Amino acid sequence: MNAERPRILSGARASSPRIHIGNYEGAVKPWIDLQDDHEMYCMIADYHGLTTLGATPPDLGYWSRECAKDFVACGLDPEKCAIFIQSRVPQHAELHLILSMFTGLGKLERVPTFKEKKDNLGSDQQVSYGLLGYPVLQSADILLYRPFGVPVGKDQAAHLELSREIGRSFNSAYGVDYFPDFYTIVSTDESRSTLPGLDMRKMSKSYDNCIYINETADETAKKIMSAFTTPSKMKLSDPGIPEGCAVCQYLRLYSPNWESQWNEDRQGLRGCVQNKRELIEILNEFLRPMRERRAQIDDAEIERILADGTERATDFAAQTMREVRQIMRLA
Amino acid sequence: MNAERPRILSGARASSPRIHIGNYEGAVKPWIDLQDDHEMYCMIADYHGLTTLGATPPDLGYWSRECAKDFVACGLDPEKCAIFIQSRVPQHAELHLILSMFTGLGKLERVPTFKEKKDNLGSDQQVSYGLLGYPVLQSADILLYRPFGVPVGKDQAAHLELSREIGRSFNSAYGVDYFPDFYTIVSTDESRSTLPGLDMRKMSKSYDNCIYINETADETAKKIMSAFTTPSKMKLSDPGIPEGCAVCQYLRLYSPNWESQWNEDRQGLRGCVQNKRELIEILNEFLRPMRERRAQIDDAEIERILADGTERATDFAAQTMREVRQIMRLA
Repeated sequence: MNAERPRILSGARASSPRIHIGNYEGAVKPWIDLQDDHEMYCMIADYHGLTTLGATPPDLGYWSRECAKDFVACGLDPEKCAIFIQSRVPQHAELHLILSMFTGLGKLERVPTFKEKKDNLGSDQQVSYGLLGYPVLQSADILLYRPFGVPVGKDQAAHLELSREIGRSFNSAYGVDYFPDFYTIVSTDESRSTLPGLDMRKMSKSYDNCIYINETADETAKKIMSAFTTPSKMKLSDPGIPEGCAVCQYLRLYSPNWESQWNEDRQGLRGCVQNKRELIEILNEFLRPMRERRAQIDDAEIERILADGTERATDFAAQTMREVRQIMRLA
Repeated sequence: MNAERPRILSGARASSPRIHIGNYEGAVKPWIDLQDDHEMYCMIADYHGLTTLGATPPDLGYWSRECAKDFVACGLDPEKCAIFIQSRVPQHAELHLILSMFTGLGKLERVPTFKEKKDNLGSDQQVSYGLLGYPVLQSADILLYRPFGVPVGKDQAAHLELSREIGRSFNSAYGVDYFPDFYTIVSTDESRSTLPGLDMRKMSKSYDNCIYINETADETAKKIMSAFTTPSKMKLSDPGIPEGCAVCQYLRLYSPNWESQWNEDRQGLRGCVQNKRELIEILNEFLRPMRERRAQIDDAEIERILADGTERATDFAAQTMREVRQIMRLA
C-alpha cells in the first residue's frame, strides 16, 4: 500500500446478509472507482447493526462475512483495499468512548435521522443510548483513519459535518491540529446513487423490492417480470412514462440502447414485457461475472481476506490511538 | 491468584493526582480489608475523569500514576490485587459500546447524579454525550469482570442497580445468564465512609478541605490547627459539640481515647487547641508508615505494578469479550 495516495475510509452498515444492486451502484461501485488511486479502508460496520435491535438479535457475524463476499465478488480488490469488520478493530470502540466526551448532547438530539429512527422503532424496541450515539461511533470510524475523504450517499453528508465538528472539538480542547477536515465525496451520477426498487420506492430489504447480487438469474428474471412499470400503460400502444417506470430506470443504467428504448416506450412502440425481457438478459449478463466469482468465494477465503484487512486497519488505527493517547496524556 | 476466591471489582475515578484520608477511609481501606480473601481488580478510572472537562484537560496520565502510588502506599498489595488503569484495557471501551445498545436512553436521563453534574457544569463546559453515558461505562467496568461484588459508597448504590439492569437486558436479548447479579458491598462503618473535610463539608479537593496521604506532617499540622471546631466554644471552658467538630470527628477515628476526649470537650474540660495538638500527633503517626512507603515508590516501580495489573486485568477482560462476541455471534 502506497502511503502517498490519499487515504479513504468507507463503510457499510451490516444490515443484511447480502447486498442489492442499489448498494452496488450507490456505494460499492464508487469504492471500486477509487481503489486504484487511493489508500482504501472498507469497513463492514457490525456495531452499527446493533443500534436498532429487534426482539431477536441478528446473526451479525454471518451477515458481515456474507457482505464481505459480495463486496469482493463485485470487484473490490482485497489487495488494494483493506476490507475489515469494525468490531474486530478495538480502536473503534476506544475512540468512540473518547469522542463521546467531546460531543455535545444537544447536537446529537437534533440530528434529523435520530428522530426518524426513533419514530420507526417497533413497539418491542426502546430508544437506546447507542442509537443516539450513532453519529459518535461514525465519527470514530472515520477519524481513526484521519482520511483525506469519505465517500457517502447524499443523505449522509450532514452526518459527516457532525464528525468534522467532533474532530475539531477534540483538536481545540488539546490545542492540536490532529483530526483532519476530511472531504465528503459524493457521487455526481445521481441515477446510480438513487437507484429505485422494483416498486419505485427506495430499494430496501425491508420493502422486499431488491435485486440481489447473490441470487440466481432465474430469481432476477422472476422479480423483473413482476416489476412496477407505467400504471396507465395497459397495452403495448399506450404511451409509457419511463421516468416513473422501474424497468426503464434499470434500462437507463444497464442498456447501451436505453435512449431508443425509452423513446419507443414513450411513443407506445414497445410494450412493458419487451422491456422486461431485454432488461432481464442485459442485467443478468452484467451480474454474471459477479455471481460466478461469488460462487467461488468460500468461508476460508473470506476469512483470509478479512484477517488481512483487519491487520492493515488495526495497524493504522493503533498508530492513531497511540498518538491520541499521547495528545491526551493518558497513562 | 486463586480463582476460587470471590471476585471483586473496585475502582476510583482519576479526579486528582492524590488521595485524601476521606478516600482512604471510604474506599481504599475497604479494598485492603477485602484483598486477602478475594480476587481483587482495582481500576483507576481515567476515562471517567473526562466526563466533565474544563477549559484545560487534566494530565490524566500523571494523576493516574500518582493515585496508584498512593494506593500502594496505603497498603493495597499489588500481589493480591490487580491495580490497573482503565484506558489501558481496551475491553472496557468495547463492552461500553456494546452495552450502549442495551441501555434505554430514558433510564440514563433519569439518573439523579446526571442532573446534578449537569447543573454543576461551568459556563465554559457543555453537557457531553459521555457525561450522560457515565453509568454505561461504569456498567462495562463492572460487568467485564463478572464480579461477585462491588464495594462502593452509599451514594453509588443506585448506579449499581442500573448496571445490574443493563447486564440483565443483555442477558435477556440473547437468552443467556451471562452477566451476574453481583452484590453491592457497602461499608457498615458510617463514620469511615462519610469522613468530613476540615470545614465539616464533604471532604473534596474542590473545597480545599482535605488532608492528603502524600503531604508532609507539617502540612497536616498546619491544616488541623486551622480546622473547624465548635463555633460557640470560644474559650476552653465553653462546652463543645463534638458531633459538629471536624477535629473531634477525626479523633473518633484515630484516637483510642476519643470517648474521654469527647466527654471533656463537651464538658468544657479541654480546649480545641489541645484537641488539635493530640490529633496532629496521632494522625501524623498513623500516616507516617504510608508516607514513608509513598516516598520510596518511584515511577519505575509504579510502572511495573501497573503493567502487571494491566496484564492480569486484560487477561480476564479479554476472556469476557471472547465470550460476549460468541454470545452475540460477532464475526
